[in-house]
Amino acid sequence: MTIDRDSLQALDREDPLAGFRADFDIPDDLIYLDGNSLGVMPAEVPAKLRRTVQAWRNDLVGAWNNAGWISLPNRIGARIARLIGAHDDEVVCTDSTSVNLFKVAATALQMQPGRQIILTERGNFPTDVYILEGLSELAGPKARLRVVAREQILESIDESVAVLVLTHVHYKTAAMYDMAAVTRAAHEKDVLVVWDLSHSAGAVEVDLNGSDADFAVGCGYKYLNGGPGASAYLFAARRHHQRASQPLSGWLGHRNPFAFVDSYQPAPGVARFLCGAQSVLAMMPLDSGLEIFDRVSMREVRAKSLRMRAILLDLLKRRCTQYGFEFEPDIGATNRGSHVSIMHPESYAICQALIQRRVVGDFRAPDALRLGITPLYLRYVDLWDAVEHLVQVMERREWDTEAAQLRHAVT
Amino acid sequence: MTIDRDSLQALDREDPLAGFRADFDIPDDLIYLDGNSLGVMPAEVPAKLRRTVQAWRNDLVGAWNNAGWISLPNRIGARIARLIGAHDDEVVCTDSTSVNLFKVAATALQMQPGRQIILTERGNFPTDVYILEGLSELAGPKARLRVVAREQILESIDESVAVLVLTHVHYKTAAMYDMAAVTRAAHEKDVLVVWDLSHSAGAVEVDLNGSDADFAVGCGYKYLNGGPGASAYLFAARRHHQRASQPLSGWLGHRNPFAFVDSYQPAPGVARFLCGAQSVLAMMPLDSGLEIFDRVSMREVRAKSLRMRAILLDLLKRRCTQYGFEFEPDIGATNRGSHVSIMHPESYAICQALIQRRVVGDFRAPDALRLGITPLYLRYVDLWDAVEHLVQVMERREWDTEAAQLRHAVT
Repeated sequence: MTIDRDSLQALDREDPLAGFRADFDIPDDLIYLDGNSLGVMPAEVPAKLRRTVQAWRNDLVGAWNNAGWISLPNRIGARIARLIGAHDDEVVCTDSTSVNLFKVAATALQMQPGRQIILTERGNFPTDVYILEGLSELAGPKARLRVVAREQILESIDESVAVLVLTHVHYKTAAMYDMAAVTRAAHEKDVLVVWDLSHSAGAVEVDLNGSDADFAVGCGYKYLNGGPGASAYLFAARRHHQRASQPLSGWLGHRNPFAFVDSYQPAPGVARFLCGAQSVLAMMPLDSGLEIFDRVSMREVRAKSLRMRAILLDLLKRRCTQYGFEFEPDIGATNRGSHVSIMHPESYAICQALIQRRVVGDFRAPDALRLGITPLYLRYVDLWDAVEHLVQVMERREWDTEAAQLRHAVT
Repeated sequence: MTIDRDSLQALDREDPLAGFRADFDIPDDLIYLDGNSLGVMPAEVPAKLRRTVQAWRNDLVGAWNNAGWISLPNRIGARIARLIGAHDDEVVCTDSTSVNLFKVAATALQMQPGRQIILTERGNFPTDVYILEGLSELAGPKARLRVVAREQILESIDESVAVLVLTHVHYKTAAMYDMAAVTRAAHEKDVLVVWDLSHSAGAVEVDLNGSDADFAVGCGYKYLNGGPGASAYLFAARRHHQRASQPLSGWLGHRNPFAFVDSYQPAPGVARFLCGAQSVLAMMPLDSGLEIFDRVSMREVRAKSLRMRAILLDLLKRRCTQYGFEFEPDIGATNRGSHVSIMHPESYAICQALIQRRVVGDFRAPDALRLGITPLYLRYVDLWDAVEHLVQVMERREWDTEAAQLRHAVT
C-alpha cells in the first residue's frame, strides 16, 4: 500500500486508541511531536487543580490527611507500577529523576562493599552521567565512575563493577536495550543494575520484574503527561527493600516521621526512598495523566507506536532524503523506543522553522531533529502533515532565515 | 493595660499590617495558628495556576522559554533573597529543604579537606539530623557526624569540624540562635556554617550577609505561603560560588544544560545548586506568596510578631496555668522566633479538641502544643479567641474524649 493522506485518515478511523485524544486538551492547530519532552495536558487537570487549591484553602494543614496528600507518592507510584512491570509497593513518586538516580545509584553502591566502579554509557542522557560524577566524587575512594561507549558496556561488566546505570531508551537515538538480557549479564557478575525509564514508561512495554531489575527511575512529564517538572518516580525491587540504605534520608522516608526522634530509621519498603515534603501540585496533574493510562493496554500503545514510527520513517526517507537528512541505522524496529531522530547540519534552524508552522519537535545537539510519537493523542494523519510541512520548510529554505537561526547563535 | 478582647480589637484597628490579610483567602470561621507548618493561600493563587495551566496547554514545551519557566528558580530566589539579607544572585528556589541541606552540607564538607566532622544539635529538626546521617555514611570515612546538646554547640566547635549545621529558629521551642555570633565563633576555627531558615524566613529578620553566613536552606510552604510541598530554597555566599562543588550535579546546574556534553561543568554562581527539572506548579504559588512579601517590611512583621507573641504568652499564663501547662523559660523575647510551644501531657488530644473548634495549631511530640504567629494575616483578636477556646476545652475536658485521643493511639 502506498501511504498517502487518505490512507492515514483511514487508519485513524480504525484506530482503537483514537478515543483517548479526547482525554487531553490539545490546541486544534498544533501538530505536537514533542510529547517525549513535555507531554500535553490531560483534560482533567484544571478541575483537579481547582479541587487541590480548594483543599489547601479550606483544610490547610489538615488536608495532608483529609485530602490524602501524604500518601500521594505511594498511590501515584502504584499507578506507575503497572506500566513498568512492577508491584504496587515497589514504586514511589517523588523528587526529580536526577535526585532519584542519585538515591538508587548510591544505594546500590552501598550494597556492594568492596566494589568501587559505577559503570555507565558515554552519550547517556547527560544528567545521568553528571549525577554519577557527583556521587563518585562525594563517595570516593569508595566509588569510581567508568564511562564507556555503548558497544563496550557488556564487555566492561566484571567483578569490579558495583552498579551499572543505563537508560533503557536512548534520549537521542531511541535505541533500546534488551533489559532482561543486560540485567542477566550484569547479575552473572553480581552487578546491580539501575534503569532510567524516562523515555520508556508510557511509550514502550517495560517489565522490570520480568527482567529481574534491581532499581529504576523515570520522569513524570514526558509520556506520562504530568506537566512541567512533574514529580519523578523510583523503583526498588522488593528483594532489596530490607537492605536499601539511601543517603538522602529525609524525614518522610523515616519509619515514623512525626515521632521526631533524633535517629534515622528507614520506613519499611520503598517509602524509605522518600526524602523531604513533596509538592502536591507537582503530583496532581501526573495523577490525571495516569488515570488515563489506567484504561490503556501498553501492548496496544506499543503496537500503534511501532506502526506510526514505521510510517514516519518511510515518509521521511521517501520525501526528505534529497534535502540531506541522515537516518538511523537499521537495528530492527522493535529495538527502538517511540521517537525518531533525523540528522541534518541545520537541524536547529529547521526545528525553529517547523515551530513557526506549529509543528513542534525538538533539537538535540549537535545535529538531531527529534520527533516524538505519543500514541494516545497523536493521529496518523499528523504524521503526513508534519512531513508535508518539513518538505515545504526544506523546499522554501525557511530554515535559512535570521529568525530561524537566531536562537541557535545565543544558546 | 489589662488585655481583653476590646483592647485587642483596638490593636487590630491600628495595625499597619492589617490590610495584608485581604491578600490571602482564609476561611471566615478559622483561627489559624499553624502557618509555621503550612501557610494559608495567597488570594492570587487560583488565577496564577490558571495562567500556568493555560501556558502548558497552549505553548507546551515552548513555555519553558516563552512563559519564563526556566528562570523561575532564580527569579523566585531573588525574591526570597531580600527577606534573608542575601544578594539576588545568592539564592535559588529548588527541590526540598532536605535535598538542599544535603547539597550544601556536602559542598561545605568538600571545601574542607582534612576535616571530617559535621556538627549539629541534638533535637534539631529531625530531617536535618537524618540527612546528615545519610551524608556521613555515604562520604565516610571523609565525614563523621557529631550530634551534641544545644548548650554544647559552641564548645564543640574546634579545628576538627568541617561544617556546623544549625536551625536558626528551633521548630519546637522557637529558641533563636544569634546568627552573627555563632557564625563568628565558627569562622574563628575556620568552620563553615549552614543555617536552616525554615522557621525564620518571613517570620523574623534574617541578615545572612550581615552575619557573614556561608550557606543556608529553607522551606517555601511555611511563613512564605507557597502551598503544600512548595519548592524550597538554598543560599550560597558569593565568595563560595567559585569553589562550590555539590554532589547532586544534575543537568540544570550545568553551565550549558542543552549542549548535552558528557562531562559536568558547573554553572556560574548559585545556579550550580540546581539539579533536575523543577516543578513549575510547585513554584508558582510561592511566587504569589512572595509578591505579597515584596510590599512588606520585615522589621514591621517582626515587631508585630513580638507583640503578638508577648500577648499570647501573657494570656496563656494568666488563663491556662491552672490546667497544668508548662511554659518556655525566659531567655528574652527577642531570642525566640514566631511561634509559641506550651507543654502538657495531653497536648495531642488538646490540639485535636481545638481543631474541632476550628482553632488550628499543631502537636509536636512528645508533649508540645505549638501555636504559630503569622503577622501578615493573624489578627490580635484571634489570640484572644484562641485562648478562650483553649480555656473552654480545658474546663469541659474536651480533650478527654475518644475522638480527641483516637489518632494519637494509631500514630
